[in-house]
Amino acid sequence: MEVKEFFPFWDKLTKDQQDRMIQAAVQRKVPEGAVLHNGSADCLGLILVCGGQLRVYLVSPEGREITLYRLFERDICLLSASCMMRNIQFDVIVEAEKDSLVWIIPPEIYRGIMEQSAAAANYTNELMSQNFSEVMWVMEQIMWNSFDRRLADFLLEEGVLEGSDSLKITHERIANHLGSAREVVTRMLRYFQREGLVHLSRGEIQIVNKEGLQNI
Amino acid sequence: MEVKEFFPFWDKLTKDQQDRMIQAAVQRKVPEGAVLHNGSADCLGLILVCGGQLRVYLVSPEGREITLYRLFERDICLLSASCMMRNIQFDVIVEAEKDSLVWIIPPEIYRGIMEQSAAAANYTNELMSQNFSEVMWVMEQIMWNSFDRRLADFLLEEGVLEGSDSLKITHERIANHLGSAREVVTRMLRYFQREGLVHLSRGEIQIVNKEGLQNI
Repeated sequence: MEVKEFFPFWDKLTKDQQDRMIQAAVQRKVPEGAVLHNGSADCLGLILVCGGQLRVYLVSPEGREITLYRLFERDICLLSASCMMRNIQFDVIVEAEKDSLVWIIPPEIYRGIMEQSAAAANYTNELMSQNFSEVMWVMEQIMWNSFDRRLADFLLEEGVLEGSDSLKITHERIANHLGSAREVVTRMLRYFQREGLVHLSRGEIQIVNKEGLQNI
Repeated sequence: MEVKEFFPFWDKLTKDQQDRMIQAAVQRKVPEGAVLHNGSADCLGLILVCGGQLRVYLVSPEGREITLYRLFERDICLLSASCMMRNIQFDVIVEAEKDSLVWIIPPEIYRGIMEQSAAAANYTNELMSQNFSEVMWVMEQIMWNSFDRRLADFLLEEGVLEGSDSLKITHERIANHLGSAREVVTRMLRYFQREGLVHLSRGEIQIVNKEGLQNI
């Protein structure tokens, strides 16, 4: 994917603005597990995802994690350029969940274009609103939904993402997605197994009753 | 306060844009307890706070509430104009906590100006980032902080806002701020009383050991 395909406002930019963006963009292959952006320590820039899967998450002072949202092909990560947004006062980590291919646009380049172009600024607003909505969704889940429901949702979503009912994921890893502790995940999964919803084996969770999970 | 005082980009607008904003703005007195904006049912517009105090909060399907942030003099409420922001997919309620005086800018007027002016669009971005950061702060509190700490923080903050150590607030109301249940608040307040941090009487909470609350 080319840089311009990510920006619906491309045709409203001047030739000079387009050239600046293209010349500054750097393509990077990111292996699974690599951290692309690490909180306020970094200000990498805009990440344009050409392929693969990235995870954006928070970490507590004690090292607990919670997933805010994931990025797929055609998505743009704005929070990795948070230094260019005044008033963003929280840190997120962006990590490759699968081998990924991305474009990086340096923050000062994008900031400059946003300041000149209302179309670019308004589109950035849309991206920010989308991220904001995703985080609100997570927050509402945490606030109003019980843990069994959140875990069931997570397993079903993973099944769709992996295209398989057999999930190769550790209990620790699930806890990091849901902002929980490993023991809590293990206890609930064992309960799911007793209810005939999943089958647990070493390093693997088999979904055996999808409808049952959906009904929780 | 005049409308133009709320917008640092005012001088970058054309005369026509300035006139449109001023002519469309409506001033409103809002009595304590009145709901200004109620989720997706409304699209009131931008609220500019000239004086008073507003509360922006979420409500669960079961009617539980949690405060996201508060607005004071000079603040702008963007989420009450969420219909003009594509991608905002969550509903908030905006309520006057004290008698307030506000300007309302209709969403279509502000949207039109944002589309023409990069300065307006970038400033709106800053407002959105600020709201986003405030919500992330609440989320981090919920995720990583224990309830005693959140309640102690809330009592200290209320003391500052009211300019008094004697808080006239019900346990129900506190529960609605913190996304909790009344019984949980009452239990924790009784524990605080046993520890000599507060004194409880009918409809009132007296902070008696500020340092103790800060140390939690």
